[in-house]
Amino acid sequence: MSRLNILYAQSGGVTPVINASAAAVIEAARGSERVGKVLAARDGIIGVLRERLIDTSGLSKAELAAIAHTPGGVFGSCRYKLGSMEEGLQDYERLIDVFRAHDIGCFLYNGGNDSADTALKISRVGKKLGYPVQCIGIPKTIDNDLAVTDSSPGFGSVAKYVAVSIREASLDVMAMASTSTRVFIMEVMGRHAGWIAAAGGLAARRENDPPQVILFPEVPFDEEKFCRAVKGSVEKNGYCSVVVSEGVKHSSGEFLSDAGSTDAFGHKQLGGVAPLVADIVESRLKYKCHWAVCDYLQRAARHIASKTDVEHARAVGEAAVELALAGESGVMPVIRRTADQPYRWRIESAPLSKIANREKKVPKKFIAASGFGITPSCRTYLAPLIRGEDYPPYDKDGLPEYLRPELTELPRKLSDFDL
Amino acid sequence: MSRLNILYAQSGGVTPVINASAAAVIEAARGSERVGKVLAARDGIIGVLRERLIDTSGLSKAELAAIAHTPGGVFGSCRYKLGSMEEGLQDYERLIDVFRAHDIGCFLYNGGNDSADTALKISRVGKKLGYPVQCIGIPKTIDNDLAVTDSSPGFGSVAKYVAVSIREASLDVMAMASTSTRVFIMEVMGRHAGWIAAAGGLAARRENDPPQVILFPEVPFDEEKFCRAVKGSVEKNGYCSVVVSEGVKHSSGEFLSDAGSTDAFGHKQLGGVAPLVADIVESRLKYKCHWAVCDYLQRAARHIASKTDVEHARAVGEAAVELALAGESGVMPVIRRTADQPYRWRIESAPLSKIANREKKVPKKFIAASGFGITPSCRTYLAPLIRGEDYPPYDKDGLPEYLRPELTELPRKLSDFDL
Repeated sequence: MSRLNILYAQSGGVTPVINASAAAVIEAARGSERVGKVLAARDGIIGVLRERLIDTSGLSKAELAAIAHTPGGVFGSCRYKLGSMEEGLQDYERLIDVFRAHDIGCFLYNGGNDSADTALKISRVGKKLGYPVQCIGIPKTIDNDLAVTDSSPGFGSVAKYVAVSIREASLDVMAMASTSTRVFIMEVMGRHAGWIAAAGGLAARRENDPPQVILFPEVPFDEEKFCRAVKGSVEKNGYCSVVVSEGVKHSSGEFLSDAGSTDAFGHKQLGGVAPLVADIVESRLKYKCHWAVCDYLQRAARHIASKTDVEHARAVGEAAVELALAGESGVMPVIRRTADQPYRWRIESAPLSKIANREKKVPKKFIAASGFGITPSCRTYLAPLIRGEDYPPYDKDGLPEYLRPELTELPRKLSDFDL
Repeated sequence: MSRLNILYAQSGGVTPVINASAAAVIEAARGSERVGKVLAARDGIIGVLRERLIDTSGLSKAELAAIAHTPGGVFGSCRYKLGSMEEGLQDYERLIDVFRAHDIGCFLYNGGNDSADTALKISRVGKKLGYPVQCIGIPKTIDNDLAVTDSSPGFGSVAKYVAVSIREASLDVMAMASTSTRVFIMEVMGRHAGWIAAAGGLAARRENDPPQVILFPEVPFDEEKFCRAVKGSVEKNGYCSVVVSEGVKHSSGEFLSDAGSTDAFGHKQLGGVAPLVADIVESRLKYKCHWAVCDYLQRAARHIASKTDVEHARAVGEAAVELALAGESGVMPVIRRTADQPYRWRIESAPLSKIANREKKVPKKFIAASGFGITPSCRTYLAPLIRGEDYPPYDKDGLPEYLRPELTELPRKLSDFDL
């Protein structure tokens, strides 16, 4: 029986734990006699198209262990959407050519809902083009918006970062509010779904705990109501702590951040909804305001990763290899929650067709009636995802030991390909 | 011999470790039979003026231990500058009245260079007003701009946060740069001194390591040169990682952030130099840019505190009590470095007159000739300050166990006082 050769690629925005999935794939594959080589694509699907492939057998055990706790994407990732089967036919043909040239039997694609769509298409196109290839998705996204899976690897660590950060910054604001900043605004990611913003709510345990206001993309921004909520908190607590999702929208559906602003030279200013919201607070309520924009810091904060999340990320990587060895294709290992308290979960397999291009938003029942907080059921859902700490090792100089291994690409067998 | 009653107050912007100093003061005082009561002022010097005082004897050992690892200012802090002895005479008289009413023999003021000035004035005014009171400063500032002391408690933890964060976010950018963000810009605090920005340089170990560009308040912003540096890094490394101090200035001396920008409604936009710098990169170099503003997150990030910094913060608190018991006044315990490798330090006493109102900027010899990086001597200075981790305990739900104790104020003995 011939051994299965695997090609692994990372896709879309990286997460604090996507490399834990990568390491788990490689380690699981090494643990099976039925797997041949494990290649990885440089910079995601673009690396496959360009035939920029890395033989992972060169990575030592110690290097794999270090990769597992390193944020970013060790093999590189990309944002590149393959078109429909018709429009993107050249791309699909090229992918199959590359698989054939390197005798790849299974393609593992570690990404979000777009990538699930791509993986699904590849799983179908191989047969048509005379080179059937197994294709398995591995879930990943900080946005937690993947369908079917109970949660998405990557989200739990970002959620922990956000909950810890808003708890800490709120302690700062409340210490200073008598004479200085009254309102603190923290912008988090989540352009279409407010899961990350919701995670800020985990920092609040009792009534009036910070954050007192959360702005979700799912709730149209109501300036009057927002101002009343902020004022109410300042009058009651002396300060107000706000978590705002980058994706918060006007009732027209337009992003607040797209309403746009220009600098002194008339340049259109880049993104950032926090300064806009801060401006509303300062100009209308006359409270001194501070604001932070977490941006990539939240998405790379491996130093405060959730242990649960790391375990999820490893488990889906291992399961993908098992599914590959079972001959599966067009599927993705997903997390199935079997109990809330104590939290229990297991990995199941789901068809990519049920995941591709869908988007799981924060449901109404998870958002408080005020529109500015989370409900107890939301807390029950979110709480286990940030549990446990999984610190990376630190060097003697007090910095985390993250690895950027030297990666040598395999000699190419095909001609160039224009993207 | 009568026992010494101590009043402790926190001043100015809080730090991740100012509460470690507070706890150390209280614990050291409890350890001496020569100390009577230890009071703490609510919201800093304002709490003294308003006679809002807390008897710390109500805090249990366990509470003190929790306070020691909690960010923010447990007793509250404030920004309130007492005037000169003449202009602010009413304030000074009131302070002395409050000290007298509560039989305070020593005032411990935990703050930066402004607070050192206040402490110095109080140490002088007591005698004049017929109530001599010892007055001792305890150093604190994330800005690291205090004179005499080798470093300022609070800075090391912020430095660690900044170095860890830029290392992490840079791993994210480099993974995505082939198709997405090329330039990442992280704004850090330090309005007048670039120590915090310099700390970002600790993340870079080898040539071309991120951050490739640091913008210091000490180096006038040169847009042409900056663009060349960013372009150079993108062409060489595929991306560029930038740390920018909030205090970066034009050659005219004007803050970049004050050059100002207006939103779509013509409102003046609040602060934030990162979006301005990002705008320069996008409009001139056409690179996709992401930016983060750390703001209070850096100043409250007790979860990634430097062990060295925590030790410093405790040591200056303990030393302040020793100085008090030795009858000292008008002094501050400072950190004296006795060796770089291995790093050794001890606490000494310095006169407040040498610290008050002075500002220690990053010296020329610490800034690379390019103006965009740190020198080896700067690294030698900074490196020990972020060494070691000192994680707070986490609860079973994955959040740090920070304490906001119930604080009961003592009955007032004096009449109201208008600020």
